[in-house]
Amino acid sequence: MPQHSPRELAEGDPFGADTLPYGVFTTADAPDRPRIGVRYGDSVLDAAAAAAAHGSAHAALLEQPTLNPLLAAGRAVWQAVRAEVRTWLADGPFHPLADVTLHLPFQVADYVDFYSSEHHATNVGRIFRPDGEPLTPNWKHLPIGYHGRAGTVVVSGTDVVRPQGQRKAPADALPSFGPSRRLDIEAEVGFVVGTPAGAPVGLADFREHVFGVCLVNDWSARDLQAWEYVPLGPFLGKSFATSVSAWITPLDAFDEARTAPPERTHPLLPYLDDSAAEPGGIDLSIEVTVNGATVSRPPFSAMYWTAAQQLAHMTVNGATLRTGDLFASGTVSGPEPDQLGCLLELTAGKGPWLEDGDEVTLTAWAPGPDGSRIGLGEVTGRILPARDVPAHGTATP
Amino acid sequence: MPQHSPRELAEGDPFGADTLPYGVFTTADAPDRPRIGVRYGDSVLDAAAAAAAHGSAHAALLEQPTLNPLLAAGRAVWQAVRAEVRTWLADGPFHPLADVTLHLPFQVADYVDFYSSEHHATNVGRIFRPDGEPLTPNWKHLPIGYHGRAGTVVVSGTDVVRPQGQRKAPADALPSFGPSRRLDIEAEVGFVVGTPAGAPVGLADFREHVFGVCLVNDWSARDLQAWEYVPLGPFLGKSFATSVSAWITPLDAFDEARTAPPERTHPLLPYLDDSAAEPGGIDLSIEVTVNGATVSRPPFSAMYWTAAQQLAHMTVNGATLRTGDLFASGTVSGPEPDQLGCLLELTAGKGPWLEDGDEVTLTAWAPGPDGSRIGLGEVTGRILPARDVPAHGTATP
Repeated sequence: MPQHSPRELAEGDPFGADTLPYGVFTTADAPDRPRIGVRYGDSVLDAAAAAAAHGSAHAALLEQPTLNPLLAAGRAVWQAVRAEVRTWLADGPFHPLADVTLHLPFQVADYVDFYSSEHHATNVGRIFRPDGEPLTPNWKHLPIGYHGRAGTVVVSGTDVVRPQGQRKAPADALPSFGPSRRLDIEAEVGFVVGTPAGAPVGLADFREHVFGVCLVNDWSARDLQAWEYVPLGPFLGKSFATSVSAWITPLDAFDEARTAPPERTHPLLPYLDDSAAEPGGIDLSIEVTVNGATVSRPPFSAMYWTAAQQLAHMTVNGATLRTGDLFASGTVSGPEPDQLGCLLELTAGKGPWLEDGDEVTLTAWAPGPDGSRIGLGEVTGRILPARDVPAHGTATP
Repeated sequence: MPQHSPRELAEGDPFGADTLPYGVFTTADAPDRPRIGVRYGDSVLDAAAAAAAHGSAHAALLEQPTLNPLLAAGRAVWQAVRAEVRTWLADGPFHPLADVTLHLPFQVADYVDFYSSEHHATNVGRIFRPDGEPLTPNWKHLPIGYHGRAGTVVVSGTDVVRPQGQRKAPADALPSFGPSRRLDIEAEVGFVVGTPAGAPVGLADFREHVFGVCLVNDWSARDLQAWEYVPLGPFLGKSFATSVSAWITPLDAFDEARTAPPERTHPLLPYLDDSAAEPGGIDLSIEVTVNGATVSRPPFSAMYWTAAQQLAHMTVNGATLRTGDLFASGTVSGPEPDQLGCLLELTAGKGPWLEDGDEVTLTAWAPGPDGSRIGLGEVTGRILPARDVPAHGTATP
């Protein structure tokens, strides 16, 4: 195998030695051997090969088709492997990023989607429930969330087929069936659970259980969603696809980017009270592009509820956590018109929406040590036309 | 191993030769070898051992710790194995049911819960939204559903710890935290997906994808649910535990029990229109007991939406199906006061609710050939007191 040397990183490259996100890749010469790599600039460190070459005790954890065994190994191992990876940067082996195929980096156990941006929830409330208060009475007391479909979480780069379903505008007498006419994005940040838990995870134990961070585009069919979601929440308007980045950036990479969440306007119950905890926010700058043009720059630092609060809430009822559980922030929106994380908000519910052929890309970075940048892997996806579903009987693939 | 012979089956035993449900069991002499068994009366046919003894081509599918490989093998294999099992009844080997330990029979991929009893949805609507129409405008046009937590699906016999969380009655100024005071059951019927699908599954293809049927108790904390569920649906009020029967009865066992669903009062879109399809209902009689006393007899034949319609709806947007996907009917309630599938309805929202130590058991049977009965495995669970969660920081396991 010819040895590839990574080019020298440009100033501000978000994938330098302080980031080191993990992913799963294959190469053209071994398409049936998915294994774990680490992104470094525009290269991929073959972590599985490096571990074997250095006789690492963790070689078996890295010669795997998913990150799950590494996720399950626990925080002490995550820290030890990260330290080893740093030393392996000196001699690789590396592959050019453009030459590898990236796969879904972990097997998703349960997927929970939160709704933790006050700006987003307020904007959506105004659009979906124009006659009521924009925020429901519970919103400032608990991080609202719901379960999504784990089986349709796909890796960045996977095409997204336009979903079909029932739509009914308030003025229509009956619902109609067809391709969604209001296909949208949701720019979110996802958290990947490593260490399982059989008991509630308090705010202070967040780092023991969460391995890392990814970008999420929670594609949404607003017309399907509006018709179906009362009273049991979103279902087919979301379940057709959720895209995640191919790279999971370890939580420890964001130590310099910790930031206090917005001031709380309502008293919090003790299990959610983070006033005495380490700052729970992360100062991530997200950029949303559609067909290469920037449409928004949502600030993750504006989120009302933190990931530690989400995890504490999600488990306080006794729900167990599994390795591979994914929970996402909900749409990230800031207070400014150019900081909104979905087209629903960016267009005040009027569209235009995504068209067939549109390609959406999310990127994000946070401040690192000494002026460096810590990146999340991008999430990209292109819209394909809806499938043909015959009027009766079996659908045509 | 001493050979155990099953006693002669009593007239009407719901686990005779026309039922033959699959489960996963261990014996005291081999606690680390979970394998597939078939219930026959009060005995368990060791299907893995029988297959090996007979040199069955399917032996490897039955020497497994979960049903998933058998589920994934597809309908032709399901039918072939069922025919083989019938012949193995002649010579076993069998174990007494009381001597084996039963395990979660399959690895749950995604769990979807529907809301398909008109009686239940109407009763709940009156209780939760007394000022509005009991049924939401979409209810007669689509089978409403939402995703539940797959990771907290547990096998019958698993104790259920009373969940804690936020509750707020309308008269309260602020929510409070503590053990649920309104812990409830939901008697449901679940369908287990075998063959995966990458495209919408039309009504006619239901049997190609669904392997079998189980009983489900979708435990519900009504106080948590009432406070959290607007606008994104139930979350912690449900996610602490969902119990399923240890036995999965093959769909083919219910051929004699097919029944037409109630007359549709609203026109259906073509993908849900079952007016020309085989009868989609199943005439299952469910019995709910609390501490041994019968509290309800919900009739599954009264369900407005059928499992085939649920599957068609769940996939019409392009959502893929995986082996091990579980979808449940929603609470089964009939029109009569003694046919209601949850305490919320049985007590008109006033309680009493489940107390610590209460044991709930669901059983069900359907008519089989020649007057026989086809059983679902029972679902039982006992309520344990809530965990102690300190006011701050880490929860105590």
